[in-house]
Amino acid sequence: MKLTEYLDELASSSSVPGGGSAAALMGANAAALVSMVCNLTIGKKGYEDVADEIGELLVESEKLRHEFVKLVDLDAQAFAEVMDAYKLPKTTEEEKHIRQGAIQAATRKATQVPLRTIELAVELLSLAREAGEYGNKNVISDAGVAATLGVAAMEAAWLNVQINLNPIVDERFKEEILDRGEALLDEGEELYEDAISIVESKIA
Amino acid sequence: MKLTEYLDELASSSSVPGGGSAAALMGANAAALVSMVCNLTIGKKGYEDVADEIGELLVESEKLRHEFVKLVDLDAQAFAEVMDAYKLPKTTEEEKHIRQGAIQAATRKATQVPLRTIELAVELLSLAREAGEYGNKNVISDAGVAATLGVAAMEAAWLNVQINLNPIVDERFKEEILDRGEALLDEGEELYEDAISIVESKIA
Repeated sequence: MKLTEYLDELASSSSVPGGGSAAALMGANAAALVSMVCNLTIGKKGYEDVADEIGELLVESEKLRHEFVKLVDLDAQAFAEVMDAYKLPKTTEEEKHIRQGAIQAATRKATQVPLRTIELAVELLSLAREAGEYGNKNVISDAGVAATLGVAAMEAAWLNVQINLNPIVDERFKEEILDRGEALLDEGEELYEDAISIVESKIA
Repeated sequence: MKLTEYLDELASSSSVPGGGSAAALMGANAAALVSMVCNLTIGKKGYEDVADEIGELLVESEKLRHEFVKLVDLDAQAFAEVMDAYKLPKTTEEEKHIRQGAIQAATRKATQVPLRTIELAVELLSLAREAGEYGNKNVISDAGVAATLGVAAMEAAWLNVQINLNPIVDERFKEEILDRGEALLDEGEELYEDAISIVESKIA
């Protein structure tokens, strides 16, 4: 899909793609920027000593980029399934029961997608910190932009996890997801702070 | 350009597009999400009283979206001009003088683009807050995602302003830009905090 078409779709009254897809796309942009910093460091004079680290970093950032891109679609699919469940008939008691089961199942699934975005964003933030540490100083602001977009992807996905949990009746499932998400968010925030400190000390 | 092609370009060893374009694209995504919240509020039961506000909000968010999209390209162009200036010959004193003048002019111009992204991001954050206040509660997380992406666009653009200012010798110009940027950042952070508080109080 073209970039401008995607934005038209996002802005439209169709709720797919929505914020969950936008969060994953943010992650993909962040990963691409880490890759760019690596590609502009490899083979450059003065960076011979970190060639191995940067090479490994690039492999990891490209892997993350492609995983994020998959999540852009997966989020839209999962959300479409939730909406389909809400459209099921609800006249008889049996229908109501089936519909409620379908809503619960689809919503649980839809919660996993932004949670996965959060996990990947935390990994990405760790790579952005390394790119800030070892990357070409001339493009070091791009490592900082990667960290900024990575933490935004994480926080945006977290809003989606929270709203998706609302209709879920299984309190134990909710609690598990919230605990997991909060732990990841703490880890991600710390990596972000580190990455930005490193980058800012090199920009100024 | 296709979404996946854009990401390939971003990740590549070509430094255009870079972090400045990614920041503007982030802003475009944020604006598109405000538009989506508006489009999913207009005509919905229970939101008749805010129809006028939401209608105006939509006009403004669509305007911002298209301005952000233009900045994606403008940033790449401005950065290409900076690189062209650095490639000018520097053998004779006269050539050195011309080259230095060209670098200064191109870099000043390149600083204005992310500064414009920051200005638009602050406007966007104000719209995201309104979308959180008046928008359809079912898609309120998307107003929060818009605010999260908006603040990230602002901070990412700020890193670009800072790195672009580095080669500039005119201290007065530098100071003016830094003062303007810092004031905008303070304003934007406050709008972001407000928007997120409103959204989180409605999600939980």
